[in-house]
Amino acid sequence: MPKTASCLVIFGAFGDLAQRKLFPSLYYLQQNKLLDDDFQIIALARRNESDASFRALVSKSLQGFIPKGMHEAKVETQLLKCITFIKLNFLEEAEYPALHATLKTQMSGGVIYYFATAATLYAPVCDLLSGSGCLDKKSRVVVEKPIGYNLKSSKVINDALANHFKESQIFRIDHYLGKETVQNLLALRFANSLFESQWHHKHISHVEITVAETVGIEGRWDYFDRAGQMRDMMQSHLLQLLCLIAMDPPNNLSADTIRDEKVKVLKALAFFPEEKFEPFIVRGQYQAGVVENQKVPAYLDESGAVANSTTGTFISVKAEIQNWRWQGVPFYLRTGKRLPEKITQIVVHFKPTAHFIFDADQQQSASNKLIIRIQPDEGISLQIMSKDSGLEKGMRLKQSPLDISFYQVGQHIPDAYERLIWEVIKGEQSMFVRRDEVEAAWVWCDHLMDLLARSDGVPKPYNSGSWGPVESNELMARDGRAWHE
Amino acid sequence: MPKTASCLVIFGAFGDLAQRKLFPSLYYLQQNKLLDDDFQIIALARRNESDASFRALVSKSLQGFIPKGMHEAKVETQLLKCITFIKLNFLEEAEYPALHATLKTQMSGGVIYYFATAATLYAPVCDLLSGSGCLDKKSRVVVEKPIGYNLKSSKVINDALANHFKESQIFRIDHYLGKETVQNLLALRFANSLFESQWHHKHISHVEITVAETVGIEGRWDYFDRAGQMRDMMQSHLLQLLCLIAMDPPNNLSADTIRDEKVKVLKALAFFPEEKFEPFIVRGQYQAGVVENQKVPAYLDESGAVANSTTGTFISVKAEIQNWRWQGVPFYLRTGKRLPEKITQIVVHFKPTAHFIFDADQQQSASNKLIIRIQPDEGISLQIMSKDSGLEKGMRLKQSPLDISFYQVGQHIPDAYERLIWEVIKGEQSMFVRRDEVEAAWVWCDHLMDLLARSDGVPKPYNSGSWGPVESNELMARDGRAWHE
Repeated sequence: MPKTASCLVIFGAFGDLAQRKLFPSLYYLQQNKLLDDDFQIIALARRNESDASFRALVSKSLQGFIPKGMHEAKVETQLLKCITFIKLNFLEEAEYPALHATLKTQMSGGVIYYFATAATLYAPVCDLLSGSGCLDKKSRVVVEKPIGYNLKSSKVINDALANHFKESQIFRIDHYLGKETVQNLLALRFANSLFESQWHHKHISHVEITVAETVGIEGRWDYFDRAGQMRDMMQSHLLQLLCLIAMDPPNNLSADTIRDEKVKVLKALAFFPEEKFEPFIVRGQYQAGVVENQKVPAYLDESGAVANSTTGTFISVKAEIQNWRWQGVPFYLRTGKRLPEKITQIVVHFKPTAHFIFDADQQQSASNKLIIRIQPDEGISLQIMSKDSGLEKGMRLKQSPLDISFYQVGQHIPDAYERLIWEVIKGEQSMFVRRDEVEAAWVWCDHLMDLLARSDGVPKPYNSGSWGPVESNELMARDGRAWHE
Repeated sequence: MPKTASCLVIFGAFGDLAQRKLFPSLYYLQQNKLLDDDFQIIALARRNESDASFRALVSKSLQGFIPKGMHEAKVETQLLKCITFIKLNFLEEAEYPALHATLKTQMSGGVIYYFATAATLYAPVCDLLSGSGCLDKKSRVVVEKPIGYNLKSSKVINDALANHFKESQIFRIDHYLGKETVQNLLALRFANSLFESQWHHKHISHVEITVAETVGIEGRWDYFDRAGQMRDMMQSHLLQLLCLIAMDPPNNLSADTIRDEKVKVLKALAFFPEEKFEPFIVRGQYQAGVVENQKVPAYLDESGAVANSTTGTFISVKAEIQNWRWQGVPFYLRTGKRLPEKITQIVVHFKPTAHFIFDADQQQSASNKLIIRIQPDEGISLQIMSKDSGLEKGMRLKQSPLDISFYQVGQHIPDAYERLIWEVIKGEQSMFVRRDEVEAAWVWCDHLMDLLARSDGVPKPYNSGSWGPVESNELMARDGRAWHE
């Protein structure tokens, strides 16, 4: 495989993903001079369109998604020049030879096939690409999560990809892995002895991971109702964050070394007892309420809703990792829609000091926390105890945050897709999800869904604009804890 | 001893210490309603003065030293009302009965005798106070550092105090101990498991303590030339900071428990071999130069200077603490006059991670540091490694500071003396230096001075405005390190 690929083929070039994320990311790569002069972009869609009219559409998208201060006409022109539009009915074998004719000069440089489409197309399109001679050892394929609907269906997709590509040619995107702060987890954990030497059950009491959304199902009731928050968020983003926060230190930064350690975490996730799993899993469904000062309807009153759906729009889990590092350390995971704020954060709670010499009434609250904010404002905050000033207080403690924001105001933060496309071009896989990771994540999520299916089947209601069902708070309260808010 | 004292007697009420520090501190205590309604202040001096004229003088000092926004006429009036002036020739036995007559109604409430005078007066004045019936079990005495000139002379002073006071009645001031950030060292070290559990040789590579002054000898050549930087700063401030940063965790916060641990540090300080001490101690003396944009003369050209003085205006030492906690961890101490900036700070260097998985060229600089600034701006900064942003850099590290300033802009920071007077009134001794501490500090400093006296006797020259003699940098460079600047 060459170090860099020279051509990117986008299936679904009119789609939301392509227009909102891929072309703007390519713009920034061009602006940062990271694309080779002869880099080609082939845009594929079923519609009839000329190069000129498609480029005009991309231009409009760029002007909408690139902030004024960042937009340079010269860069846009350079990028648009690289784009060729080809009309393709993705399932029409007869149209592939023409595609091959266009691509064959590119193949020596390495062609990336990016599926910005439904997963159902992966298998037949790969067959047609292969049949028409468009694939070789230098080809790469990019697919989006979710890979399947459960373990079984994910295997079908992975098998179809494996028919035509080696694992080293397959790039499965979970865009969280492209976020700067998620990348930064590796630096924070493994370049800081202060953290690394305490990163285990002797020093950490518990960990929280929250992925909270304010949005509801955004008009995609059908899609969401089949997936639910478990497949939409837990199986992917939350478990990826869990892997990065909990994995053993990799011996080096190679893609497979890192992913070997991540898979070990997933495989160590405890299964819950069938008879007594309720204290460990809470599934919720939003009711009407107020989010960001807007009245919003209940999940079952959303447009397109089917009565009596038991799909969860909120999941919280008290997970256990059964290995040497994390014995006895709960990982509390929660994710939901229509919560009070859009926030993704990890809170690592350190154990208190072995002996407490300050006023006893302060012991409960006196422990260190490392808060890693992944969005909206990426940064970390280390909560330490210091002395409260003021003579009359004597030696009283207060929580003081040591803060760092990773970006200055106005700085361009590379978007996750910008980074991920760049990594695909470089052929570097560490930010992509390996097959065994996807499958190990499904094994555990299938187990959770199986347990929920055995229960009475009714999700716990919560008001839109709240932090989920009361049962989610009870899940921590039983351990004498509360979610960090 | 009652919990609070009701009367403060100040010897040397016209002096700089009383006017600049004690009365302004009493003002703030009054403003914060920490002084009882019947609290009395007896100002003593040799001059003839009426209550009214002395109060007018104090009023002038207050208006000079209290910032406009903090000054309240009402508080000043309340404070001045408490002050009585008495003329006293400190060594004139015949004048003491009158003092006793004034004090005797106060004695049941507890009288504090504050010696804002030369140390030579402590012994004879204590004798006269005792002889005239001014002392009882409720009395307290406050004396300033330095206690003596070496171990022997400090014993003479301590013995004289011990003739009339129990150790629990004696409050030896090192004003550094009253600083908020110095107090905060206890909270930082012992309320944060993140630090406490790493506070030993397995996780810390070395520690720096710097007390840098920009001033020269400030017109007190005679005084300073007898003392030198060793007695003036090292024996007191630096060793106190060393004790607080290095002591084993005290089992509780009682004064004696804390001081027991501090004494253990001082007693564990290694002695250097007589034949080979030069790599461990550097004595410097400032030459002419530029400090804060002002041309300044050499030490030997200062007004009042005597030729060929070998007094050190700069000392740096690589100290070792021979105990279980600090095996192999050097403590680099330095203090000097005419340095580039006035700063007191402690830098704790953590060891690097056991294994380094990032670019090898970054290994040298990738370690955590905790920087504790004691002055001028009190706060702490934790240097951690994070990922440098920007796609093209790949996984590169950068040093990122997690910062906290302990005070908001405009907040009144209690002065060290304000706190210390308050602690004397409360009868709480943990911020004062116990006799065995003073003496253990002298034992080690006497050893250093003894070694320097055996050497050729010539201090190393350094330019005013530099960070001391090159030999001070070499002291760290030999260990592959450099002072944090």
